[in-house]
Amino acid sequence: MVRIKQAVQMDHSPYLVPTGQPVDLRAWTTDDDGGLDKRAAKDRTDDLNDRIEALQELLFAEGRHKVLVIIQATDTGGKDGTIRHVFDKVNPQGVKVASFKKPTEEELGHDYLWRVHRHAPKSGEITIFNRSHYEDVLVVRVHDLVPPEQWERRYEHINAFERLLTDEGTTIVKLFLHISKDEQRERLQDRLDEADKNWKFDSGDLRERAHWDQYQEAFRVMLERTSTVHAPWYVIPADRKWFRNLLVSEIIAATLEQLDMAFPPAEEGIRDLVIE
Amino acid sequence: MVRIKQAVQMDHSPYLVPTGQPVDLRAWTTDDDGGLDKRAAKDRTDDLNDRIEALQELLFAEGRHKVLVIIQATDTGGKDGTIRHVFDKVNPQGVKVASFKKPTEEELGHDYLWRVHRHAPKSGEITIFNRSHYEDVLVVRVHDLVPPEQWERRYEHINAFERLLTDEGTTIVKLFLHISKDEQRERLQDRLDEADKNWKFDSGDLRERAHWDQYQEAFRVMLERTSTVHAPWYVIPADRKWFRNLLVSEIIAATLEQLDMAFPPAEEGIRDLVIE
Repeated sequence: MVRIKQAVQMDHSPYLVPTGQPVDLRAWTTDDDGGLDKRAAKDRTDDLNDRIEALQELLFAEGRHKVLVIIQATDTGGKDGTIRHVFDKVNPQGVKVASFKKPTEEELGHDYLWRVHRHAPKSGEITIFNRSHYEDVLVVRVHDLVPPEQWERRYEHINAFERLLTDEGTTIVKLFLHISKDEQRERLQDRLDEADKNWKFDSGDLRERAHWDQYQEAFRVMLERTSTVHAPWYVIPADRKWFRNLLVSEIIAATLEQLDMAFPPAEEGIRDLVIE
Repeated sequence: MVRIKQAVQMDHSPYLVPTGQPVDLRAWTTDDDGGLDKRAAKDRTDDLNDRIEALQELLFAEGRHKVLVIIQATDTGGKDGTIRHVFDKVNPQGVKVASFKKPTEEELGHDYLWRVHRHAPKSGEITIFNRSHYEDVLVVRVHDLVPPEQWERRYEHINAFERLLTDEGTTIVKLFLHISKDEQRERLQDRLDEADKNWKFDSGDLRERAHWDQYQEAFRVMLERTSTVHAPWYVIPADRKWFRNLLVSEIIAATLEQLDMAFPPAEEGIRDLVIE
């Protein structure tokens, strides 16, 4: 049996949101550097991504576990960049990204978990949700898209849904990319000033920025009510992109290693075979 | 506004499984006739099916409600016949039947509610589940297809899933077609004896009949643990097909009438238009 040795070094517990306790989002730093410098962090991330690649191949070969990574962030928080930098080496056959944008008419005709559930990973797969069902207690809440008594019930639905997935063999990791309001201003300004970032600028982002405090409150309640033992949230300090990438790579690698996987046993007699 | 008047006559409460109370399936009759004779019942069913047709058209036009009808039964209990006789007049554009057979490899790779959730009705639709997620606490339980600690958790998942659907605008009706062991023997014998029923006979049915008591126990626990206020079970006495059809038509018609629907208002000024 081939096993891959432990390789994670960092203690992630400071970034884990404890279950059932009040959350004060202002107490969570956005500009942590883990005491590392950028060059060392980048090298380390690169090594970790090799390990993620190897572990993902094992997960696919074994075909037993399902892994779901849910990423939420403030606008410009770096969801796309995180996915690009952490999963840059994996085999796309076993890793899927599901991006949830404004729901279609067909999607709105169903309950809000309908479009999400169909993209849940199957055995041997890693699925990354770029935004997710949490939008239904974030943008929906901030913009009053449904009455409060309706979104209020959703925290319980979501916990039950994630409980179903984990009870039936899915490992769930939830990542909230946390940036400061100043950092968002700089990133939006860059999108205006730098020609190769202009395509990213959307004037809607400015309208959303005006709701900063309401979004922070919606994120706070999300973390407080849906960080469960079976599907915990991590708050990722994301002002420094290189630290964000390192920490997410650490958490993903550690999660895969904890699955304690092994390649399926070789077919009997295979060692005596010679291909002619 | 066009409204359709009340037309349901029977009291369905004796067939409703109360929430949170012990269930003794032997106390539920299989050969009720409601004090009616067959001819009168068939005429009445025919009238009700006209009403179901009209109400379904209204549901589709209004596009506001979703309706899910879940049908479970002992083998030969009459699921197919019920669907054929109750929904024979509706417009298939707004009424879908989802039949859940032995899961495919793709379906087994996901949690057991994955294949079911994707067929949940959308606004304006009626969906009928011919078998359902309840198989995952019936055949799966009787044949030990997963360990007890795994199916044990599923009653809670199922209640939470159905709660999600109802909270988000779906009306759920669950029908258990209840026949006696003698009636099953006669129906299986007919499938052997009558040339035009031979195609229905499957020797697997005899193997399942040998598990009669285990299935009755699994049905009993299902009714006891998943008849909720938001998604109640009805036990339909199904030895007499004509009574089964009448009672199901009554319940479906009553359920649709309780939605208190109305056709959408006409576009303003439409009454003055003359088509030239």
